[in-house]
Amino acid sequence: MIAVLAGGIGAARFLQGLLSVHPPSDITIISNVGDDAEFFGLHVSPDIDAVLYYLAGLADEEQGFGLKDDSFRVLDAIARFGYDTWFRLGDADMATCLARTDLLQRGKSLSEATAELADALVVPATIIPATNDRLRTKIRTEDGIVDFQEYFVKRRTEGHAWEVLFDGVDDARPAPGVIEAIAGADSVILTPSNPLVSIGPILAVPGIRETLATTDAKIGAISPIVGGKALKGPADRMLRDQSLPASATTIGDLYKDFLDVLIIDNADAELETEIEALGLEVVVTDTIMSSMDKKAALARTTLDAVSKNS
Amino acid sequence: MIAVLAGGIGAARFLQGLLSVHPPSDITIISNVGDDAEFFGLHVSPDIDAVLYYLAGLADEEQGFGLKDDSFRVLDAIARFGYDTWFRLGDADMATCLARTDLLQRGKSLSEATAELADALVVPATIIPATNDRLRTKIRTEDGIVDFQEYFVKRRTEGHAWEVLFDGVDDARPAPGVIEAIAGADSVILTPSNPLVSIGPILAVPGIRETLATTDAKIGAISPIVGGKALKGPADRMLRDQSLPASATTIGDLYKDFLDVLIIDNADAELETEIEALGLEVVVTDTIMSSMDKKAALARTTLDAVSKNS
Repeated sequence: MIAVLAGGIGAARFLQGLLSVHPPSDITIISNVGDDAEFFGLHVSPDIDAVLYYLAGLADEEQGFGLKDDSFRVLDAIARFGYDTWFRLGDADMATCLARTDLLQRGKSLSEATAELADALVVPATIIPATNDRLRTKIRTEDGIVDFQEYFVKRRTEGHAWEVLFDGVDDARPAPGVIEAIAGADSVILTPSNPLVSIGPILAVPGIRETLATTDAKIGAISPIVGGKALKGPADRMLRDQSLPASATTIGDLYKDFLDVLIIDNADAELETEIEALGLEVVVTDTIMSSMDKKAALARTTLDAVSKNS
Repeated sequence: MIAVLAGGIGAARFLQGLLSVHPPSDITIISNVGDDAEFFGLHVSPDIDAVLYYLAGLADEEQGFGLKDDSFRVLDAIARFGYDTWFRLGDADMATCLARTDLLQRGKSLSEATAELADALVVPATIIPATNDRLRTKIRTEDGIVDFQEYFVKRRTEGHAWEVLFDGVDDARPAPGVIEAIAGADSVILTPSNPLVSIGPILAVPGIRETLATTDAKIGAISPIVGGKALKGPADRMLRDQSLPASATTIGDLYKDFLDVLIIDNADAELETEIEALGLEVVVTDTIMSSMDKKAALARTTLDAVSKNS
């Protein structure tokens, strides 16, 4: 059994590879919900939906988020009613959010709603939100604390991110099955995702990090930082904003209390020794997922690295 | 001051004429809400929206309901999640319903939400729902009691409508301003709408029919039945289902406890004497609103008929 801690696009792309080389029924995906938000009264779960759409073959992989060939008719029309429309929720994407919101309104948990959406989209792996409670990532900017989506989408991650906060985290409990998936796994994989705002909110849910530290599973992470740069998104700048070097070593350092093995890119081969000095195994490979073959190869290498026999 | 009791499309078409010949600021439209429904978790108010869309110049006048040039992208996508899609809510129409639902969720009343939507769509008259409380028209069919939209849209009004029920009506209070608008009006107009399911739910709200009976306003209705047929919709069959003749005389009979004048079509001129025998004034005119000129002419004739000096 494999548990995967997953953020957004990087996770979705890695999981495409993983599900192509490993039986999906053995995989439990634990998704970040810190970037969940409400727009137009709808509950939007961007990271859950990114994983759903990529695994269902519906994702707009060029743009990264949303569904391919989506349109924006509702968004255009709702602008009339004074709503901000900088969060570009497409029509088909909105249908997912409508269904989720309807399920939540009818008393289902986010877990249950996610399972129903995944079933409807014929996604074969199990996807669980890290928590069913309200946990919202906020960013302290020079203009004060803003919601994650405002920082990420409206402000296009411009400006200094002084602090990353997880609103509600103290009262958040792991969703049913999260602790069991980690504690009972043979292997745990942290996808190549932003450590601060994609993996960070998962680790911040009380009980999850502790379980990672005590599980018998072998735990591996793929560095989202390659050659000092984030492959996608603002992870490199955000690390520097926290006075942390933007390097694969920092990824190892952030996870070293529970991590066994860090998978880094060939471009970072010279970091192997300093990462090993953190007490971690290191696997050096090609982590650039520029094709389905490369996604599958990275998944295979990762599976080998987190196998207890390796 | 004029108060208008309004159903759906017939009301919307009549109001286009009325607002073209009378200052909109003097007009309070009291809308049926018995055909409100929830679809996809959204609060749909078809009669309020028909009036809004027609008066805002956005209506799909060919189809009757919805917005012109609307698309169905969300509907197509939400079908994936197991939702019935026989209620063909277009994308722009859905934006209205999203905004309404969001306003209601944030604690606004249906009156307040309606006022905000009307403002946003630049509709110049005041539109008030008959009640802010939950009042739902149900139809007793041969298969049991069904929601109005199921009878009207899904079943296309096929089959016998044994009974029209107003679920929740006993606890429904007139929305703020409804009683004042009727009691304080110089004239009250009942639009050419289905008496059972469009005007009926308004009259059934405790206090409204009583206020119509006691107001000093002169009250007129335009018959939606012409030559024994409903101009649009199932009013003729529904009347016969209640063992009532489908005729303008029946319209007068249904309203005679508060009505002063019934406006009937030239085609029904021979009914004048029997309607007068109900104690009503009768005005015979062209009630077929086949052009904007004819809508305006019917509005003028109606205004004359309900003028206290006439």
